[in-house]
Amino acid sequence: MTNQLIQPDFMPEIRLRAQKTQALMAEAGIKAMLVADNANLYYLTGRFFRGYVFLPANGDPIYFVIRPDSVEHGENVVRIRKPEQIASELARLGVELPDTTALELDSLSYSEIRRLDAAVNGTTPDFRSIANASPLLREARMVKTPLELRMMKADGEHQAAVYRRVTRCYKSDMTDLEFQVEIERILRLEGCLGRTRVAGRLMEINMGSVISGENADTPSPYDFSMGGAGTDPALPVGADGKTMKEGTVVMVDMNGCFNGYQTDMTRVWRIGGISQLASRAHACSIRILRVLEKEARPGMEAGELYRRAEAIVEEEGLSPYFMGHRQKAGFIGHGVGIELNEQPALTSRCQTLLKEDMTLALEPKFVIPEVGAVGVENTYRVTADGLENLTPMDEEIIELI
Amino acid sequence: MTNQLIQPDFMPEIRLRAQKTQALMAEAGIKAMLVADNANLYYLTGRFFRGYVFLPANGDPIYFVIRPDSVEHGENVVRIRKPEQIASELARLGVELPDTTALELDSLSYSEIRRLDAAVNGTTPDFRSIANASPLLREARMVKTPLELRMMKADGEHQAAVYRRVTRCYKSDMTDLEFQVEIERILRLEGCLGRTRVAGRLMEINMGSVISGENADTPSPYDFSMGGAGTDPALPVGADGKTMKEGTVVMVDMNGCFNGYQTDMTRVWRIGGISQLASRAHACSIRILRVLEKEARPGMEAGELYRRAEAIVEEEGLSPYFMGHRQKAGFIGHGVGIELNEQPALTSRCQTLLKEDMTLALEPKFVIPEVGAVGVENTYRVTADGLENLTPMDEEIIELI
Repeated sequence: MTNQLIQPDFMPEIRLRAQKTQALMAEAGIKAMLVADNANLYYLTGRFFRGYVFLPANGDPIYFVIRPDSVEHGENVVRIRKPEQIASELARLGVELPDTTALELDSLSYSEIRRLDAAVNGTTPDFRSIANASPLLREARMVKTPLELRMMKADGEHQAAVYRRVTRCYKSDMTDLEFQVEIERILRLEGCLGRTRVAGRLMEINMGSVISGENADTPSPYDFSMGGAGTDPALPVGADGKTMKEGTVVMVDMNGCFNGYQTDMTRVWRIGGISQLASRAHACSIRILRVLEKEARPGMEAGELYRRAEAIVEEEGLSPYFMGHRQKAGFIGHGVGIELNEQPALTSRCQTLLKEDMTLALEPKFVIPEVGAVGVENTYRVTADGLENLTPMDEEIIELI
Repeated sequence: MTNQLIQPDFMPEIRLRAQKTQALMAEAGIKAMLVADNANLYYLTGRFFRGYVFLPANGDPIYFVIRPDSVEHGENVVRIRKPEQIASELARLGVELPDTTALELDSLSYSEIRRLDAAVNGTTPDFRSIANASPLLREARMVKTPLELRMMKADGEHQAAVYRRVTRCYKSDMTDLEFQVEIERILRLEGCLGRTRVAGRLMEINMGSVISGENADTPSPYDFSMGGAGTDPALPVGADGKTMKEGTVVMVDMNGCFNGYQTDMTRVWRIGGISQLASRAHACSIRILRVLEKEARPGMEAGELYRRAEAIVEEEGLSPYFMGHRQKAGFIGHGVGIELNEQPALTSRCQTLLKEDMTLALEPKFVIPEVGAVGVENTYRVTADGLENLTPMDEEIIELI
């Protein structure tokens, strides 16, 4: 990297993303936004830095950089020490601040919003009326650009390459945690950044989830599709450190972030023979994916994906196990990209309309008591005639030997 | 774990933490707080769950649980679906809501604060006047209880045990990243939870930082003491994937979270001989630690630790390299506990007075161009007559062979 904030060959992409966001701003009547959230900064610049992007509804973005020191001043790049300098620097550049500059109300803290509001809005007269930049950025990020799709495709290829090596991580009498640690090592050597970027505070995880046998039926405090007790009450999710047993399955749902974007992918391994119920539920998951891959279309309500999956599950009499057994998750998938939990959330009531080039993780899963969690998860691109799988790999349950 | 929210043998500890917080609330004139931040929930209950703790200045805390489903109703434990139920459930229990219930303004999003404010305060008439629970909880957590100190001591022992095995992770012509991955594996097998819990949005990291050679002089956008380019602009910190070279050092500053608490510890390894300047700077770091260990006292201004360190560095003529070279960090350490970046931040101007049983990471470090980062970091407990080291291990630079 040079010391320029934005790499020159990345400029066309940056312009495209700014334009997409600006089109939504125009629709919503928002005249400018000041962006600070890390995932949104990465979206609008292709890198992380400490600072802000001022994005007017018309015109070029202006970048305010606090750190690193090495970033050069440049056209539209202004070094500052604190956000209180933004208004006077904009005036110096001849850029007018609108009545209200929208802020990221859903991800920045109340205290930070108050500070930024004072800095750019001079404190909004009615503090409740600050315009919210968060939904617009979520919407802009939901539909991916060609470059974003290439990056996610690369993620999927890396992730699938790692998953093909999972079987070799196993040794008999291993704990689920020991198994997970060997998978983590391969992921990291393959280039996984080792950090799961999530929005909000209701998902905390390390490099992913490996759940084995009965541990799959431990209800989770988090918004993940599956639970698992974890090894400590401070991080109650995933592997619980118990030895993996004959006649059970282990579900591997590990981090697929190799470049700032991520794919989400789950496969299942078994130790010895498993019950017919478990095999049948896994086959049902694959059937659901085949149906949705074929039937999903731009313009369809996202909730329809959930409802069609649910109908298949009911037809097969597997409802008691669908998306959890003692506790159930209310969705069968979610948008994915820079963050693991992007829009839309695929609940039965989600009214978001599917659009071409949205990326969705679909994860119809089942928890079978005493056996464990089964089901497949792939990350897909919405195309004009169905879903394109970004995480292709065999989907059958694989034997660990 | 049973299905009780709080494990019975943990109740005395929970009472102690509530009382400490309540004493600070009484001083500040805060009559009640509603706590939702994950680190604070863990502090007040010893576990993570999705929900809220209502803590009055007088009386017992009341726990509102959304997830997991498995938590039993019980004395002071109320299952809810959403925060809008809190006021009526409190009324049902005969608990009066004060005029203003304090909220965690520094860590919850603006949107979430608005929702909680409406739920418990009926929307504060002047929205700017919501009382802030964040500083009180930070202050309560700054001074550790005997149990917290035992947990951190256990962390330090685990972390030092892993660091003693670091030398064996090395093979010649390895990249810094390959070296880091082998350390991560040992950490995880030793029980490290694999996730660095930090406050705020200005520190993002995977399992820690391994910086080798010139990469140490890459300015960071983050609030970490040291930089490093990382391997991707989405997470520009730490190892950059280059081969470690003869005549350079590698600084290992990896995650020490084995139980919800964490210690922070840094040691340095070298490949072959290194410059006299680098050796001298490392010796200076050890000298600073010896002086501060002996001189730190309850009642001393925290900033005094920085100023004494700085004076030693100036005396030795090492200022150009202290806490960074191309870009400098403005602190020599920080509080540590549930989160990596707790109070106080040891800057030159920090006026917080040291108290017995505070836990501080001290990290006087130097970046030596072409050689890398040197210096030692330990986590300490403040005692009546100096600092007790929770991360004891040899501090000299260790040769990698």
